[in-house]
Amino acid sequence: MEKEELFETVADLLVKGDYSRLRTILLELEPFDLAEICEQLNESHLPLVFRLLPKDLAAECFSNMQSDLQELLIKRMSDAELKAMLDEMFVDDTVDVIEEMPANVAARMLANSDPETREQINKILNYPKDSAGSIMTTEYVRLNKNMSVADAFARIRRVGYEKETIYTCYVTESDRTLVGVVTAMDLMLAEIDTLISELMETNVISAKTDDDRESVVKKFSDYNFLALPVVDNSNRLVGIVTVDDAIDVALEEATEDLEIMAGITPTDKPYLKTGVISTWLSRVPWLMLLMLSATLTGAIISKYEEALSHLVILTSFIPMLMGTAGNAGGQSSVTVIRALSLGDIEPGDIFRVLWKELRVSFLCGVSLAIVGYFKAMWIDGADPLVALVVCITLFATVVSAKLVGCCFPVLIKKIGFDPAVVASPFITTVIDALALVVYFAVATAVIPSL
Amino acid sequence: MEKEELFETVADLLVKGDYSRLRTILLELEPFDLAEICEQLNESHLPLVFRLLPKDLAAECFSNMQSDLQELLIKRMSDAELKAMLDEMFVDDTVDVIEEMPANVAARMLANSDPETREQINKILNYPKDSAGSIMTTEYVRLNKNMSVADAFARIRRVGYEKETIYTCYVTESDRTLVGVVTAMDLMLAEIDTLISELMETNVISAKTDDDRESVVKKFSDYNFLALPVVDNSNRLVGIVTVDDAIDVALEEATEDLEIMAGITPTDKPYLKTGVISTWLSRVPWLMLLMLSATLTGAIISKYEEALSHLVILTSFIPMLMGTAGNAGGQSSVTVIRALSLGDIEPGDIFRVLWKELRVSFLCGVSLAIVGYFKAMWIDGADPLVALVVCITLFATVVSAKLVGCCFPVLIKKIGFDPAVVASPFITTVIDALALVVYFAVATAVIPSL
Repeated sequence: MEKEELFETVADLLVKGDYSRLRTILLELEPFDLAEICEQLNESHLPLVFRLLPKDLAAECFSNMQSDLQELLIKRMSDAELKAMLDEMFVDDTVDVIEEMPANVAARMLANSDPETREQINKILNYPKDSAGSIMTTEYVRLNKNMSVADAFARIRRVGYEKETIYTCYVTESDRTLVGVVTAMDLMLAEIDTLISELMETNVISAKTDDDRESVVKKFSDYNFLALPVVDNSNRLVGIVTVDDAIDVALEEATEDLEIMAGITPTDKPYLKTGVISTWLSRVPWLMLLMLSATLTGAIISKYEEALSHLVILTSFIPMLMGTAGNAGGQSSVTVIRALSLGDIEPGDIFRVLWKELRVSFLCGVSLAIVGYFKAMWIDGADPLVALVVCITLFATVVSAKLVGCCFPVLIKKIGFDPAVVASPFITTVIDALALVVYFAVATAVIPSL
Repeated sequence: MEKEELFETVADLLVKGDYSRLRTILLELEPFDLAEICEQLNESHLPLVFRLLPKDLAAECFSNMQSDLQELLIKRMSDAELKAMLDEMFVDDTVDVIEEMPANVAARMLANSDPETREQINKILNYPKDSAGSIMTTEYVRLNKNMSVADAFARIRRVGYEKETIYTCYVTESDRTLVGVVTAMDLMLAEIDTLISELMETNVISAKTDDDRESVVKKFSDYNFLALPVVDNSNRLVGIVTVDDAIDVALEEATEDLEIMAGITPTDKPYLKTGVISTWLSRVPWLMLLMLSATLTGAIISKYEEALSHLVILTSFIPMLMGTAGNAGGQSSVTVIRALSLGDIEPGDIFRVLWKELRVSFLCGVSLAIVGYFKAMWIDGADPLVALVVCITLFATVVSAKLVGCCFPVLIKKIGFDPAVVASPFITTVIDALALVVYFAVATAVIPSL
């Protein structure tokens, strides 16, 4: 509500041309809220609003916008304006924008960055997707271990405005080897003439440039840092990841995992900002793949056509049996995939995982078999032999589905793929086929007339 | 690897009784790593290791342990030791521990907290589960707007050690009404005699005590804060949430959503620390529920027994059709549920969601129907009439499954329930039944002999 009112006021002042009151209101806002307002504005008003903002707020507001709006704004900026804004932006935000821009806009952004920044941008752009290097920024406060606390404060006051955080400062040798970390809290609580070397924490926890960004989030969660240093293979400091980016990565990774498990190719864009065609393209390949893989289940049923035509009631249990097997396997695979992402288990734990799932699946299998037997008899009105077939099948498929569901993700991770991507369609197909094969095998063994 | 080596060294020094070297090593460690080592240690060594640590490190290490180990340690502590540790712990960490303890241990912890802390703990414990109030801490730096920057620094130096963060300070009136926020960066970059009232940001973004904790995470992600103030209905400051807790909440909420969608009752514990019985209990009710709800699909099939016995090939398409409908619906429901959690859409957006899904489902339905037709003819060897039935059913079920999948979560959210919990089993049952009803209706309409 409040946001809508605010937008009305802004739109109103724009029409009236009361720019001084407008500016006062805009200056009060957080960059995120400003960006939201800009997205709702008439395109023709946008450059005007943008020019009313002080440079640093304009840059932060720009960093918070959706990429289509960023593109539009860049196209309307002169080279001088673009350069001024890029100077104010943090390097990691610039990289995020460049990644979403068409080639010609990206090239123009690079051309208007100052040479040192351009080099840093290119370096970050070259790190693998989803690596620590790709989400880091190069703007951090670097201290020298021979400085005093007073020197450190002086340095922070001089360079602090341009840095993404001043709350964690990094102590390096002249060759940029990372030797220590000092927090602003340490500095504030210390005597003014203490040496940084006495104050710094030397047992530094860091990430390597090609570490997975999920492991970066895990470090933030484990150690409660506000920033994490990123080093190269010789322990030279190349950048830092700040906690605000770690939160965004945590949310993005979770969304990605959910989407992948639901058979959707992940996108970065919010739901309502994604076009119909791209939503379709992100969904239809998985539906096709799973539909085609169902050829297997169809073939198994066709093979037992004869038996089914003798005893049609068997057909009525197929959806329940396949569904239960699928649910049982899904529980295990989702749990294991998530535990792998959170670092709760490693591929080396496979035997502990198997042993646990074996016992859980035994308990689940027995409970479902018992309830399933009486359900088949009393609710579905099957005869005792058919109920027995259902009961045995339930037990066998729940156990095997859970074992398949827990092993596959671990094995897939072990050979270096993303368990979420590979596991779902593969596991579904295997478990569906398994359920049918077990069902028909048990049926033909138990019921003499088949 | 490194961690295992470290553990070996610690265990070795314990056996040798070389406590001074042991202490030097332990002091270098982060609390999280210390807690991990403690969990692997022989129980009898644990109190000894704990007594070697300085109080603050011991308290932080304790906060990072699993609850079973915390319980064991508390039971071995004298009241004096427990009191000393509780004095060092942050209130929100104490609350987290108390929530997991059996009643007698929790009572002993409360009895050994100092009266003021006890009152704060009880207050936090009384906020609803998953609310902003339940995850906040009451240890923040409070400033007065008439203070100078020098006064503020003096205050931070005096009370800073006991506070969860000193990087964001809160300016309140004498009745605790929140009037502004000042960051340590503002203070460090300002002249020493500037008044806080000149420096503070007055447009303060805060959470209410009973706001959902997911909305707190969203604020951290939107505004890049290091801490968020929590206020009561009269805008009086009652606590703050720090960014490290926000990251943990983001990870927990994502795990919960994944588990719920996979039909698992969420737990807080890591996978390998959860007992077999509790894992079974978290899984079997959903499997039962879904198995029993499959009575519906069984009944629908039984009703068409006659038709199926005439044309058994129809049976072989049932798994594929139900599976595809389920996948199509799941894509929509997972996307919409996630967008609701992230705040990308609100229940009021239902018509925009419906319109988007209608178009996407049309495209998906047409693509699958075309491919499904030729697959039925060429791969499955069905005759043209059966293939036509499959093709029409695919289109109709994909469209209706997607519409059901996108509407239900929004409606459920609108009436105030968690879409993730209610949506999955309900949607699955409806979509399965829908797929079968459409299939048989189309089959009997198209194939004259049925």
